[in-house]
Amino acid sequence: MDADSLIHIARPRDGFNRLYPITMGRYGPTVAVPRILETYRRLGLKQSFFIPAWTMQQYPDTVEAILRDGHEIGHHGFLHEDPTTIAQPEQRHWFERALQVHQRMTGRKPAGYRAPVYNVTQGTVDLLVEHGFSYDSSLMADDVPYLMKTPAGELFEVPPHWGNDDWPAFAHFEEIGYMMPVRSPSIGLSAFFEEFEAHYEAGGLWMPVWHPFLTGRLARWRLVEAFLERILANHNVWFAPLAEIVAHVDAFRRGGGHVRVENLPYYDGPVALMTNRGQAASPL
Amino acid sequence: MDADSLIHIARPRDGFNRLYPITMGRYGPTVAVPRILETYRRLGLKQSFFIPAWTMQQYPDTVEAILRDGHEIGHHGFLHEDPTTIAQPEQRHWFERALQVHQRMTGRKPAGYRAPVYNVTQGTVDLLVEHGFSYDSSLMADDVPYLMKTPAGELFEVPPHWGNDDWPAFAHFEEIGYMMPVRSPSIGLSAFFEEFEAHYEAGGLWMPVWHPFLTGRLARWRLVEAFLERILANHNVWFAPLAEIVAHVDAFRRGGGHVRVENLPYYDGPVALMTNRGQAASPL
Amino acid sequence: MDADSLIHIARPRDGFNRLYPITMGRYGPTVAVPRILETYRRLGLKQSFFIPAWTMQQYPDTVEAILRDGHEIGHHGFLHEDPTTIAQPEQRHWFERALQVHQRMTGRKPAGYRAPVYNVTQGTVDLLVEHGFSYDSSLMADDVPYLMKTPAGELFEVPPHWGNDDWPAFAHFEEIGYMMPVRSPSIGLSAFFEEFEAHYEAGGLWMPVWHPFLTGRLARWRLVEAFLERILANHNVWFAPLAEIVAHVDAFRRGGGHVRVENLPYYDGPVALMTNRGQAASPL
Amino acid sequence: MDADSLIHIARPRDGFNRLYPITMGRYGPTVAVPRILETYRRLGLKQSFFIPAWTMQQYPDTVEAILRDGHEIGHHGFLHEDPTTIAQPEQRHWFERALQVHQRMTGRKPAGYRAPVYNVTQGTVDLLVEHGFSYDSSLMADDVPYLMKTPAGELFEVPPHWGNDDWPAFAHFEEIGYMMPVRSPSIGLSAFFEEFEAHYEAGGLWMPVWHPFLTGRLARWRLVEAFLERILANHNVWFAPLAEIVAHVDAFRRGGGHVRVENLPYYDGPVALMTNRGQAASPL
Repeated sequence: MDADSLIHIARPRDGFNRLYPITMGRYGPTVAVPRILETYRRLGLKQSFFIPAWTMQQYPDTVEAILRDGHEIGHHGFLHEDPTTIAQPEQRHWFERALQVHQRMTGRKPAGYRAPVYNVTQGTVDLLVEHGFSYDSSLMADDVPYLMKTPAGELFEVPPHWGNDDWPAFAHFEEIGYMMPVRSPSIGLSAFFEEFEAHYEAGGLWMPVWHPFLTGRLARWRLVEAFLERILANHNVWFAPLAEIVAHVDAFRRGGGHVRVENLPYYDGPVALMTNRGQAASPL
Repeated sequence: MDADSLIHIARPRDGFNRLYPITMGRYGPTVAVPRILETYRRLGLKQSFFIPAWTMQQYPDTVEAILRDGHEIGHHGFLHEDPTTIAQPEQRHWFERALQVHQRMTGRKPAGYRAPVYNVTQGTVDLLVEHGFSYDSSLMADDVPYLMKTPAGELFEVPPHWGNDDWPAFAHFEEIGYMMPVRSPSIGLSAFFEEFEAHYEAGGLWMPVWHPFLTGRLARWRLVEAFLERILANHNVWFAPLAEIVAHVDAFRRGGGHVRVENLPYYDGPVALMTNRGQAASPL
Repeated sequence: MDADSLIHIARPRDGFNRLYPITMGRYGPTVAVPRILETYRRLGLKQSFFIPAWTMQQYPDTVEAILRDGHEIGHHGFLHEDPTTIAQPEQRHWFERALQVHQRMTGRKPAGYRAPVYNVTQGTVDLLVEHGFSYDSSLMADDVPYLMKTPAGELFEVPPHWGNDDWPAFAHFEEIGYMMPVRSPSIGLSAFFEEFEAHYEAGGLWMPVWHPFLTGRLARWRLVEAFLERILANHNVWFAPLAEIVAHVDAFRRGGGHVRVENLPYYDGPVALMTNRGQAASPL
Repeated sequence: MDADSLIHIARPRDGFNRLYPITMGRYGPTVAVPRILETYRRLGLKQSFFIPAWTMQQYPDTVEAILRDGHEIGHHGFLHEDPTTIAQPEQRHWFERALQVHQRMTGRKPAGYRAPVYNVTQGTVDLLVEHGFSYDSSLMADDVPYLMKTPAGELFEVPPHWGNDDWPAFAHFEEIGYMMPVRSPSIGLSAFFEEFEAHYEAGGLWMPVWHPFLTGRLARWRLVEAFLERILANHNVWFAPLAEIVAHVDAFRRGGGHVRVENLPYYDGPVALMTNRGQAASPL
């Protein structure tokens, strides 16, 4: 749940005075999340919300309502700042300031993290390990959770991917350079529903990434709700917050089950060589 | 109804000599609006048109025809200038000059406003309050009308959103940097029709934002017309100009009904801090 | 039929050495047009091809085949140069050099013109009038042919529009900044077929704009061919080159029929005022 | 199979530290290719993989598995460097260094080549001829294989095209400037299936270009697999690596069959003239 963090970080100078993107974002915590929570409550589902700390501070009632219903809140940066665009000391600063907000507002450190724009760096992984996170949910190396081992420690990855994210289907946001040709609710959501069928058939994990200000819109959420009802009635599915899913995978692994391992860091330095023109590049 | 205001504001130097976008825009007042008016007349509908004042001056017969049929004309800037790109004194200048055109051509101040590109600033809201507007229709914080309270006064918001706007489905306009992959009439319009079903089911408000030069095109409007006929025959719906809808909401509120309130201004200054590079940004 | 003119004009320095866009374009005259001509021959259709003069020179056999089958060839610039990007003397130079190519290769001046990127200027219209063209086919002010009157003379406009053009559905051409999410043949072409139904019902004009290198592709043309067969079998339609359609409209008008008139030039100078920053703009 | 070569070449400075695109790419060799190989093994298919040499070095087990199953590996540059962006000596350097990797890892020179981004230059063709390649698969001048004759020798072209490539349907990759509105599996893949029907009916060649990290995704590959099963059961089709298809075409030609010839180079120098502004251009 990004709310209006996106416009402030994208337009630091005048984002505060751009009321259209502010209200487009505010729809998330004030209208969509109550609707989503109602659905989850009725269907008995517990899920995970990733929220920038600044957004948590701005919308404390929404945070409260999410917690009251037993959902998980994960770390999603301070103001949706992209880790690849800031230096490591700055990344640490905001990462830890966000942790303090989580601690203060939820009473605990979050177990999971999702990077703004999925843009994890090795420095981000190191921060997650250092702070004892049990999982990240930003990287795409597999269909099911896997373990990331780094020199400093390890954590699980619960992988998203673009075919299961509502940004390409519904985001129309010129100020952040993201102009998708918004789809009808049924066409836009059919991608998620087809993903479900495939992952269900494979006995895998289906993790739709839905932004409240996009998929929580009235006409879209109505279809999501009907879909959830249908699969809960007809399929043998387990819905849970990601932290529980990760705990399940961890137990499976400790019991001798196979979980794939990715060893990090992937690279210690650039693979390609900059040309003098600073434009085209050659392999090293 | 923007007509060719878009190309003049986008290409101030040579827009006047770009005949393709000029004619693409002129199709609105000269071909599409007469067609739309005919449909509304036949079906007994009254609706709202938002028109830049310059466009009103250029196409007085179209303005006349709209008024003759009892439709509402709302404020839509002078030449479709984006409020976020001009200073407040300049915004006031054009806002008020547009008001004069409305006064002269319609005999009254408009009751409603829609910002070009939906780009309302706090200064825009202040102008609306100052000039006694009863509503804005550019902001997206809810599915149904809500009240915006500011220190200087209040007005209603009748919220649009991108899933109910024809720009993403049909706009293909390189000169303004808006290159959508134009959809077939039936696929492009299905989004609106699905939105209707959802809002009807919810007992809410369905406000499609249709630009005459886009949705008023022959093959598209034919589908809209058939859809309107169908829902008028089979559904219990009330179509009205936005000013009437707002009056209805206002009466409901005065009678003790609950209408959500958004308090403005949202922010007094920047939320994020510019870096020296003026590019990436950090939260304050 | 643009063939590879597009890459040469877009990348004047190295377009000649970019073999992928060259071959993507060459597919038009060498593979697609023979296929298209075969269909038209079998179905007894005569149509119009707009070809840059340079392309005519490069592919004389294709020009020959088009003429042999009795189709019309219209003026489409010299090397697909955009009239809005060159000064009037330069526009005249290439316009007239193209005329010479038409004269030499087809034995006559063309009757019709379509501007590259539809980008007609008032100067283009003046050239068309000066050279006795009977029609242009680039502007979008109506659904059916209309008359453009200028101080120097008049000509008809046979209007295209983006909902009936294959560029948005199939063009994927990074070198010219045109990256559409290519559609499946059936989804991409459904727009044209829906347009036909609407214009047929209205008793109007259906003018699909199909580029041989896009819609002439095997899997797409197969659907077009089946569609043409179907409507020829079941509908009361008249297919003809645009010049014949224009002659028909002209006769209709001379017989007292109503044809809408657009008076040009639309504007004598800029409508909007540049700011000092040269960026945002205000109405004059 | 590009894997993460794309991010390193696109972001030479910090691509090594962008874990989201790295993992999105790694999904190809580690998850998708094993899945794809399993399908091909079960269905008895041999196919062709084009892999940058750097990627081969990074993922030797995947290369091994592909070879073990009897598939072909073609040349795809060293680090997915675009031939049109580097000088000819640099192109030769990386082209030949890649050849060495192929020789070392596969025991032989590759028979075929596909240019990164399809961006073949005349210099690329010359390198292919010089090194005895039997085919390229990047250019688009026909639906079926054709012969390219150059002064230095000849080779076949097995032509792809954008309607049969998964990049437009599924690629969402901001770092390389490629933001497609990702489609649902069934809508995105329907283009390929329609292409098959058309080429099957024509007795031609169907060559889908599928990137493992895109079409090899779980929900998408499931549809591909079902489709392949269906056409293998019901159609008279021959699947083979491109090298075998080219050998077949070559034998057909030597037996007197007609194979179309394209004579290269197409042009010796620029066709269009740069203006002083270096922007707009005029034909020479």
